[in-house]
Amino acid sequence: IHSKLPNTMVSIFSQMSALAEKYQALNLSQGFPNYPVSPELIALVNAYMEKGYNQYAPMAGMMPLRERIAQKIEAMYGLDVHPESEITITAGATQGIFTTIAALIRPGDEVIIFEPAYDSYRPSVELFGGKVIPIRLLAPDFNIDWAYVRSAMTEKTRLIIINNPNNPSTKMLCREDLLQLELLLKDSDAFLLSDEVYEHIVFDDRVHETVLSYPRLRERSYVVASFGKLLHTTGWKLGYVIAPPILTGEFRKVHQFNVFSANTPMQLAIADYLKDSNSYLELAAFFQEKRDFLTSGLQGSRLEVVDSESTYFLLVNYSAVSNLSELDFAKHLTEHYAVATIPVSTFYSAPCEQNLLRICFAKDHITLAKAVDLLHKIV
Amino acid sequence: IHSKLPNTMVSIFSQMSALAEKYQALNLSQGFPNYPVSPELIALVNAYMEKGYNQYAPMAGMMPLRERIAQKIEAMYGLDVHPESEITITAGATQGIFTTIAALIRPGDEVIIFEPAYDSYRPSVELFGGKVIPIRLLAPDFNIDWAYVRSAMTEKTRLIIINNPNNPSTKMLCREDLLQLELLLKDSDAFLLSDEVYEHIVFDDRVHETVLSYPRLRERSYVVASFGKLLHTTGWKLGYVIAPPILTGEFRKVHQFNVFSANTPMQLAIADYLKDSNSYLELAAFFQEKRDFLTSGLQGSRLEVVDSESTYFLLVNYSAVSNLSELDFAKHLTEHYAVATIPVSTFYSAPCEQNLLRICFAKDHITLAKAVDLLHKIV
Ligand SMILES: CSCCC(=O)C(=O)O
Ligand SMILES: CSCCC(=O)C(=O)O
Repeated sequence: IHSKLPNTMVSIFSQMSALAEKYQALNLSQGFPNYPVSPELIALVNAYMEKGYNQYAPMAGMMPLRERIAQKIEAMYGLDVHPESEITITAGATQGIFTTIAALIRPGDEVIIFEPAYDSYRPSVELFGGKVIPIRLLAPDFNIDWAYVRSAMTEKTRLIIINNPNNPSTKMLCREDLLQLELLLKDSDAFLLSDEVYEHIVFDDRVHETVLSYPRLRERSYVVASFGKLLHTTGWKLGYVIAPPILTGEFRKVHQFNVFSANTPMQLAIADYLKDSNSYLELAAFFQEKRDFLTSGLQGSRLEVVDSESTYFLLVNYSAVSNLSELDFAKHLTEHYAVATIPVSTFYSAPCEQNLLRICFAKDHITLAKAVDLLHKIV
Repeated sequence: IHSKLPNTMVSIFSQMSALAEKYQALNLSQGFPNYPVSPELIALVNAYMEKGYNQYAPMAGMMPLRERIAQKIEAMYGLDVHPESEITITAGATQGIFTTIAALIRPGDEVIIFEPAYDSYRPSVELFGGKVIPIRLLAPDFNIDWAYVRSAMTEKTRLIIINNPNNPSTKMLCREDLLQLELLLKDSDAFLLSDEVYEHIVFDDRVHETVLSYPRLRERSYVVASFGKLLHTTGWKLGYVIAPPILTGEFRKVHQFNVFSANTPMQLAIADYLKDSNSYLELAAFFQEKRDFLTSGLQGSRLEVVDSESTYFLLVNYSAVSNLSELDFAKHLTEHYAVATIPVSTFYSAPCEQNLLRICFAKDHITLAKAVDLLHKIV
């Protein structure tokens, strides 16, 4: 068989999680919580299953959930999003990203991505014959030079992908970035895919700038969000995509033949849960406490913490202790110090060694305390 | 926006379900059960959620479920399937079909499908630049002329898709068909996608011939199966794909960037449930009783039932009552007789009117009795 993705391997998240299991290491690699999900939310899923809501949801999602999303966006930003024609529930944010790319990209199309980049963007684009134009951002600021982005655009540019807040850099785009992006897109036929799955996990009173509040961006954007991040349920595989009606129409053409629809009882449970809970408003403080605990815990260790602005990750620089490549050092840490992390180099398509590892802190207190202990052992 | 799927509409299943709702009609269109799911199975999902299994499953699926599938296949056919390298859990069978096509099809590749065909095959192939070569099968036999199939193959033929048992014709391939297919593939580089989601729902002691028991087919096949059909849980969106290790490797390259993984607590619950339950052995009798009830109930009506061999559908011929096209007659029935069905013509890519409607009988007794009443009113 002649592979369509000859350079694609098992994702780094699967690799490191498997290695963590092999060495019985603390798994701070793949991003997922290790504390309980709300019992009320679980009870709602159970109730909907028992009440018999176990058959196909409508292709675009259960209407109560789409309405709840629209209400949340209205409450947060005072913006109108239409549940019927602008919101589609997906089997996780990753499926929303893949399906957007599937709906837009033809052979020869160019797609601009900013690296470090979530690992699904590139192979998804390449699967449809698209060409990825990576723009490299570097620690510690990971700043975007918009004039450079403009110079990278051609008439083949079909899509720009942003990830705001960014995994793994934890950097956020500011108002000025989005205005620059608006100027850039004004002169082009390109669309925008805005991966905003960490929208609520932002620290130190920072404000997340959603593409939805920039009308000239919104009219050509797909905005991807995640219930897994919102509700600590990454294994329920539910997310959603917001786009203007015509773009949503193209999205659904693919969505209906990719997964057809998403999990019914869990959609209904989340809709009810969000009616009574504004827990998303507490996410920032919830994770900031964890970030602070880990950040201060690592003081006095040989690892230098890079200030984390958002997401449930932080980066550490290990220059003081090793010259190993990031991948080798991450493996070394897993095997010899029983802590699994993610090498940041795997978020770049070309070799890029900055002595950075990504640590997931969506963990309970005991785990984070243990992580601090183990990471202090590194000499 | 220049659509990648300009001819694709909202699927007939969504259309007819929406129409059924609009006219408060009995929805016998889209295929889904309307009776309860096993309470034990629901209790298991609840228990796994409560025990904290709410985070990402491994990309290829929870191992207990993959092992259970392997055990079931061993028990049924005495065949060895390797859980680690040959089984991948998907977010429904449709995602398994889409992902297989995504992993194989490049622009210009030809894909042979047999019509009537499930509606996702064609747009999925076209999305990747493939060309569908439809082979038309007609009522009442829907027989395949294998010499004709051979004549339709070229060196561009990359994939043949079969659906056995077939939705909507209800016909099954026999041993001779699969041997013919084996001969055909021997001289070609094409792969086989065998959609076997109705594998257990076969009537009158017929035997389902799975591609898995034909070694020379199996070595180049993706076999797609559905937990929704097995457990009456179409809204849980879980299925699986079996393929030899190298083909599974290519499948997973796409799968991991499409959905990454499938629902965790439901995978674990199904694994446990299948340990204690051989309910799939009872599916045939369970649905045969429903088929017989509907078939005999429609005697004396103006609709002529076409013998249903498998699946939870049956076809009726309405030649005695109307000259309307199938689509128009299906709409007419929904509006004026309060019964929604599926026009068989929508499973063909070129116009094909045979006065046939598809009726789903995965319904409780009351609903089927009501259907019989309503359908007898047609004059
Ligand atoms: C889908 S596995 C990856 C989870 C995640 O978002 C991350 O670890 O970056
Ligand atoms: C995914 S909706 C279609 C359900 C089904 O298999 C059918 O009705 O044929």
